[in-house]
Amino acid sequence: MTSPSQSAGTAAPASAGPVDPALIEDLVAASRILAAEGILDGYGHVSVRHPSHPERYLMSRSLAPALVSASDILELDLDSNPVDGRGRTLFRERFIHGTIYRARPDVQAVVHSHSPTVIPFGITDVPLKPTFHMAAFLYAGVPVYEIREESGFTNMLVDDNARGRALAATLGDKPVALMRGHGNVVVGPTLPHAVFRAIYTEVNARQQTVAMAIAQGGPVKYLAPEEGDIITNKKPGDIGRAWQLWKSKVMGPP
Amino acid sequence: MTSPSQSAGTAAPASAGPVDPALIEDLVAASRILAAEGILDGYGHVSVRHPSHPERYLMSRSLAPALVSASDILELDLDSNPVDGRGRTLFRERFIHGTIYRARPDVQAVVHSHSPTVIPFGITDVPLKPTFHMAAFLYAGVPVYEIREESGFTNMLVDDNARGRALAATLGDKPVALMRGHGNVVVGPTLPHAVFRAIYTEVNARQQTVAMAIAQGGPVKYLAPEEGDIITNKKPGDIGRAWQLWKSKVMGPP
Amino acid sequence: MTSPSQSAGTAAPASAGPVDPALIEDLVAASRILAAEGILDGYGHVSVRHPSHPERYLMSRSLAPALVSASDILELDLDSNPVDGRGRTLFRERFIHGTIYRARPDVQAVVHSHSPTVIPFGITDVPLKPTFHMAAFLYAGVPVYEIREESGFTNMLVDDNARGRALAATLGDKPVALMRGHGNVVVGPTLPHAVFRAIYTEVNARQQTVAMAIAQGGPVKYLAPEEGDIITNKKPGDIGRAWQLWKSKVMGPP
Amino acid sequence: MTSPSQSAGTAAPASAGPVDPALIEDLVAASRILAAEGILDGYGHVSVRHPSHPERYLMSRSLAPALVSASDILELDLDSNPVDGRGRTLFRERFIHGTIYRARPDVQAVVHSHSPTVIPFGITDVPLKPTFHMAAFLYAGVPVYEIREESGFTNMLVDDNARGRALAATLGDKPVALMRGHGNVVVGPTLPHAVFRAIYTEVNARQQTVAMAIAQGGPVKYLAPEEGDIITNKKPGDIGRAWQLWKSKVMGPP
Repeated sequence: MTSPSQSAGTAAPASAGPVDPALIEDLVAASRILAAEGILDGYGHVSVRHPSHPERYLMSRSLAPALVSASDILELDLDSNPVDGRGRTLFRERFIHGTIYRARPDVQAVVHSHSPTVIPFGITDVPLKPTFHMAAFLYAGVPVYEIREESGFTNMLVDDNARGRALAATLGDKPVALMRGHGNVVVGPTLPHAVFRAIYTEVNARQQTVAMAIAQGGPVKYLAPEEGDIITNKKPGDIGRAWQLWKSKVMGPP
Repeated sequence: MTSPSQSAGTAAPASAGPVDPALIEDLVAASRILAAEGILDGYGHVSVRHPSHPERYLMSRSLAPALVSASDILELDLDSNPVDGRGRTLFRERFIHGTIYRARPDVQAVVHSHSPTVIPFGITDVPLKPTFHMAAFLYAGVPVYEIREESGFTNMLVDDNARGRALAATLGDKPVALMRGHGNVVVGPTLPHAVFRAIYTEVNARQQTVAMAIAQGGPVKYLAPEEGDIITNKKPGDIGRAWQLWKSKVMGPP
Repeated sequence: MTSPSQSAGTAAPASAGPVDPALIEDLVAASRILAAEGILDGYGHVSVRHPSHPERYLMSRSLAPALVSASDILELDLDSNPVDGRGRTLFRERFIHGTIYRARPDVQAVVHSHSPTVIPFGITDVPLKPTFHMAAFLYAGVPVYEIREESGFTNMLVDDNARGRALAATLGDKPVALMRGHGNVVVGPTLPHAVFRAIYTEVNARQQTVAMAIAQGGPVKYLAPEEGDIITNKKPGDIGRAWQLWKSKVMGPP
Repeated sequence: MTSPSQSAGTAAPASAGPVDPALIEDLVAASRILAAEGILDGYGHVSVRHPSHPERYLMSRSLAPALVSASDILELDLDSNPVDGRGRTLFRERFIHGTIYRARPDVQAVVHSHSPTVIPFGITDVPLKPTFHMAAFLYAGVPVYEIREESGFTNMLVDDNARGRALAATLGDKPVALMRGHGNVVVGPTLPHAVFRAIYTEVNARQQTVAMAIAQGGPVKYLAPEEGDIITNKKPGDIGRAWQLWKSKVMGPP
């Protein structure tokens, strides 16, 4: 899951310029929040698109998410080449992020995780569906990326742009895609939004597991598509309230 | 879930006067306890009726429950208008509280949560029932508020007085009502009692989930209504012992 | 669950004399360990028989177990009258302890808990059985005390000696009895042993829940009675290693 | 689970010489990591083969894993006799380690645990299989050691070399074997690798439990053997990233 920081024989891409330290701080916070909330463990990563230049994004060097600091953040192009690698090891699956930024102009942040209660939904025929309003963003469906379709038997990693494009194609216009036998990818229009979605996808998975267990074959009343659409697209909730809490827990009070 | 603090064109209601700082401290504690015990996360809220005036209640401004302090507490009337908003953002669903205080003279405190193991009981046909004496207050039944009945497809929020009245009507004279696809509301004759009930409703849901799983279709022996009635109405337990523990964990020793 | 410290009109029993402070410290530790390990919450209690006099036992006044200190410990007789109550509130269910000490000369410590994963086994027809060697002590069966048999509909509490005797009769010579719709009682030949058994009964319940779920009706291979008997009665394991760990976590290193 | 540190009448084996303090520190870290991650509790142990001499290994004296320090580490031969016991109590089941080092020249570290979600797979007919890439090492199968086959009814402990050899025979060339009614043993080519495998075996067991529950009899798509083989043998992932995180949590930053 790590690779040297320079593609053989390619000049490094140019930087899109400095980024507001507040955004770097939020990216560091996002990484630590996702670890603290049990979405990421030693593995997984979060990135944010460069605010001034859509063809660059920011991500940590290869490091456990809980340990990320501002000095670990690098800038990459959408082919996931680093601007200034300095020999630092990169995440092998950074291609998940670059290909999604290319495919999805609406997306400003991407999370890749092995979120534990979500993984079972990617290896069964059970579709992940919203149990409650906080996970309404799941309403339009959660596609499953099956890596064998394009790549046959592999090491299960999206560790090049071809696989990244296949995953982005599966994701389509959705906020979440599961990766069979691996984990999931979650996207959002802002960094706090992507973090919120990553956390509430896991919460939803836990609730759906319990609902299916107690229903014992009986009906489970998931959110109606109309409800999901209203909440997600017309009357969104307040992400900031949770972001403030999560950030204060990992970064200390402002 | 947040709204500006003044209804358009309405004079703010008059204050019912100062409140014992000990009650404000308990309201702050209640908010933090419910977060610490996993009942609330970044969302949800707890309120208490004004001790001197039944037509006022106290609640935090819109803020993650774990972060609430005494200076965040505001006074509202039973239409959920703030007495002294000072431009602070309010909880969008404060109407849950005001309408219940109006409908239920016996209620002195209200908790609204997205308590995670309880939500599945609101989206299945499985009634929540008391597995043990600590949750005896569930004995007379736990109604489920289905927002579609009055409001059709919505953002699932009780964000006005009409919806609040519909929820209060569903709650009736019960201590707990579930809100399909959303969470629950829990009420009590005192603040510690409402907090106790919110916590033990979640504990009960976990135990009921396990009981149903191991029973594998066989019988589950819930408390008899007679047992529930004796414990709830005739020989209540000692809420104070748990309140002292919970409060000391979030506020430090007295 | 609390009652005044003096029975009307009865002279307090005589003290059996001072107790080694090391035992008081272990009783305080036991209470805090059981809270820290999730066996007790704001409720439940642990006691130890007086080392010099079999007709006295030691227990905290009515207090959340995590908050117990040496100054909270009182001495009681086997009818659960305090030697020196000093107006302190006692546990309403102290009668569980006194009646067991009377019925069971082999028992030196008693734990009463609402251990959460164990409760479902007391309200279903599923017998709790040892999944692994650490819970071998369950091998001879885990009886269930049904309070209705002697007392009809009640507040579910063992809050007098008559009910205590009924529970002790159900417990018989076993280490654990479940209390339907309430919790359980666990006994041991020493205080660390009773604490160990209380913790591993809960661990066993969690493992049995998972085993039954994955078996999906297929066989579950519990310990054979011969295996349970060898471990429990002939070749016991080392309780001290766990006790040292648990005690250091709640009391700090020695 | 503890025994005196000298076999009757046998001269202690010779030491293979000093060990790099960094390896001792890693062994201490491994023990604490496994406790912190919930794989070990007061019981269980981890060892590492002597880096200079294949016929010696290092392990703590009998102590709860969370409490291990460098001064607790002893050197043993492959019959599990201590080089310099100094009267310290040893783990009764150290024979698990010595016999595996003898049978498996490829193995440099061994973990024995009572990992709680794994135990149910050893007492049912449900084979543990890899749900995701991080547990790919399970792909070739997870044998179950049934102690009754060679030893009849016992105390369930592998507390001599004969039982150790039987367990090692069951393990064969696999990374993990379950021990019916007891726990499991996990091996690896390095200490961090064995720790990684012990943790991800438990994570996999949790995910498999959920997958089987939601599948409700429908298919579960485990990793294909080809996928398991590629990840385990051809393109392994980065253990170091997780090891760095886990070690920093229990030992503080370097």
